[in-house]
Amino acid sequence: MPTDAEQACFEAGIKFGSLYHQFAGTPVSPASADSLGRAMEESIENQPHCVDVDVDVRTDRIAEELADRSAEYTELTGRFLDVEMRIRYADVSVRTRMEMEDDYPLMKLVSVEE
Amino acid sequence: MPTDAEQACFEAGIKFGSLYHQFAGTPVSPASADSLGRAMEESIENQPHCVDVDVDVRTDRIAEELADRSAEYTELTGRFLDVEMRIRYADVSVRTRMEMEDDYPLMKLVSVEE
Amino acid sequence: MPTDAEQACFEAGIKFGSLYHQFAGTPVSPASADSLGRAMEESIENQPHCVDVDVDVRTDRIAEELADRSAEYTELTGRFLDVEMRIRYADVSVRTRMEMEDDYPLMKLVSVEE
Amino acid sequence: MPTDAEQACFEAGIKFGSLYHQFAGTPVSPASADSLGRAMEESIENQPHCVDVDVDVRTDRIAEELADRSAEYTELTGRFLDVEMRIRYADVSVRTRMEMEDDYPLMKLVSVEE
Repeated sequence: MPTDAEQACFEAGIKFGSLYHQFAGTPVSPASADSLGRAMEESIENQPHCVDVDVDVRTDRIAEELADRSAEYTELTGRFLDVEMRIRYADVSVRTRMEMEDDYPLMKLVSVEE
Repeated sequence: MPTDAEQACFEAGIKFGSLYHQFAGTPVSPASADSLGRAMEESIENQPHCVDVDVDVRTDRIAEELADRSAEYTELTGRFLDVEMRIRYADVSVRTRMEMEDDYPLMKLVSVEE
Repeated sequence: MPTDAEQACFEAGIKFGSLYHQFAGTPVSPASADSLGRAMEESIENQPHCVDVDVDVRTDRIAEELADRSAEYTELTGRFLDVEMRIRYADVSVRTRMEMEDDYPLMKLVSVEE
Repeated sequence: MPTDAEQACFEAGIKFGSLYHQFAGTPVSPASADSLGRAMEESIENQPHCVDVDVDVRTDRIAEELADRSAEYTELTGRFLDVEMRIRYADVSVRTRMEMEDDYPLMKLVSVEE
């Protein structure tokens, strides 16, 4: 049988995959970044065992990308996101974070505590 | 060559398909409905020729569905959405609406005016 | 009342927005491009008034992007897609295409014929 | 530091959340179920540490739903999916499965083996 810590980490992964693939591709501009980030937080916090989701849609990086482009918006993707989550399963607390590693948005287990 | 009115209607359809398929499946509860609706509005308003998007995520229908279920949230789908949009292309204004027709969320052209 | 040609163009737009925003963000590699393209075609062809969808997931452009990256896959986005669709509403046939215009994946009405 | 088993379970969860929220809402009929299932398998198998994904899009349940409806297709959701995955991280193998529990598509850890 999987341990509570393993279950907690599985649940943490589900939330991260959900958040990323539900919202990747959403049209986003610096002006609409806040409402998108808030919807991402509140929708994923609905999922079981999810204590807290913190999403920062990086308006600085969006603005930088748009500086070189003809369009006034772009699509949400990993490099425009800083995400932290806390998951609790039974007595286990898991912290996770997404951050860019080279050109890849890496989802990471930060800590698993009983 | 397509007319301006035809172009306007094509653009209106793009917005509707985008809104629906970007956000269908999002975890939603009565408490998170407002932030989701606002993000839907602001993200689609980024798209070209889109003047205004009004989304009402129907908390009454979500609550009704959840009354019979074990979970405390559900997935966003057409019957939880009332949507109206205004599109402008050249001198043509298009109004569109999504509403349930029997069990199908029908996207409709309401008016095309030059 | 909207004309049949306007309705046909609206329907054509819905299909394009649906296809793009349902599948944008999907993990894709040269090896998985074919199955993804086929699923995109067959899923959108389910929608009303949709006669034919032709999707080419551009393995050449995916391979080119991956040449510079640490990952072995990327996310589906507009520059990896060539799409053509035919829509029929009442007696009107509409042809549409998506192609890159500068750095933006432009969805275009090609022809509207009664 | 998280153990290899915890990392493996986290990775397994990511794949499940990704698969579900990338493809939920896709138009699907009995005729298009096979191509959709195959695209889901091949796209998620691109992700790191993912050994095998097996998706059965349940044409029997889709047909049953459509029997009562006016439309000839529906949207992909959990009750139309049987999914099994194998993940390998370092020396740990994880098996996962999604199945309906009452009305909720529960994603489960089946085994964690070193």
